[in-house]
Amino acid sequence: MIGYTKFLGTLIQELSKLPTIGPKSAERMALHLLKSSPQRSKALAEAIILAKEKTRKCKACNYFAEGDECPICRNKQNRDKVLCVVEDPQDVIAIEHTGRYAGLYHVLWGRLSPLDGTGPEDLPLKQMISRIKEENFQEIIIATSSNRDGETTAQYLRQILTPLKVRITRIARGIPVGSNIGHIDKATISEAFEGRREVSA
Amino acid sequence: MIGYTKFLGTLIQELSKLPTIGPKSAERMALHLLKSSPQRSKALAEAIILAKEKTRKCKACNYFAEGDECPICRNKQNRDKVLCVVEDPQDVIAIEHTGRYAGLYHVLWGRLSPLDGTGPEDLPLKQMISRIKEENFQEIIIATSSNRDGETTAQYLRQILTPLKVRITRIARGIPVGSNIGHIDKATISEAFEGRREVSA
Repeated sequence: MIGYTKFLGTLIQELSKLPTIGPKSAERMALHLLKSSPQRSKALAEAIILAKEKTRKCKACNYFAEGDECPICRNKQNRDKVLCVVEDPQDVIAIEHTGRYAGLYHVLWGRLSPLDGTGPEDLPLKQMISRIKEENFQEIIIATSSNRDGETTAQYLRQILTPLKVRITRIARGIPVGSNIGHIDKATISEAFEGRREVSA
Repeated sequence: MIGYTKFLGTLIQELSKLPTIGPKSAERMALHLLKSSPQRSKALAEAIILAKEKTRKCKACNYFAEGDECPICRNKQNRDKVLCVVEDPQDVIAIEHTGRYAGLYHVLWGRLSPLDGTGPEDLPLKQMISRIKEENFQEIIIATSSNRDGETTAQYLRQILTPLKVRITRIARGIPVGSNIGHIDKATISEAFEGRREVSA
């Protein structure tokens, strides 16, 4: 672009790759970084590198962890013996933000999608099943998205969970159809938890 | 924040310091970075470091440069012999984006502000004066902001530039393009009347 120096141009380009950041915002962010102290911009660069390097998946639930266990599993003696199955780590954050759920999670890092070729073997379902067999959960809450793939996943989960003789619920369809849970407001998520219903095979 | 791992929390905090980025956007950006490839997030971190390390001020005009000269001054034989005085480097980018100006710039990196204690000695005015004396500009366009400090700066620039016997202009104040007069403030409407120009059929 006319007027950009080379490295400024590269920085704007990299920032534009972030979600919801258009070229104008990227330019504004880049100029802010160039004008702030070297410490400030270095702190951001280091935060990116460190977060990426240090973050792995929790061995129990697959949510973000920095050691073997995520902050939620590490604190599991204080959490309800309820398991909430979600598609993505941001779903955990969104649900935690409501302050209305105090159980544990299982993060699938995806959903069944016949069109995308994602089958049951691509999701950590065996790990989930053996965890449920080992630990004595009072309830499994299926909190996959309320779109087609999310519903397909919920159906499949219901099938494989039914033999385990544990209460299975599905969060209510208070979530607007076609939306990802990670992008929904707290109140709607709370309503959806409140309105969850028994699932029979 | 509940549910954040430590380094994820730090990353969200650092991203929130960027302009126009609220906590929700910062979270979304951070999760995007955690879920993207290590190459992608490293590219962004490196772009920040590099842009910051390599960017200095152009020796002639104070705009961003990676060597001694900025991309605009390096190309000055192809630019008009007109000098546009601006407050900030982003003003250069905004003016370059219009594609309507082909002259050179002088970036003050600030404006006179009696309230903030910014006086003439805090701005690179000596550098500007000797540059104008050395080079044969046809016109100096004062493009400081149209707020109080910007006007104070414009007034002062006019005073110190007048002895140099060069044409001095100030960019027009008026109704922004695409605005309804009914929605514009009194001061701007008054300026627009003041600055009215002859229209020939």
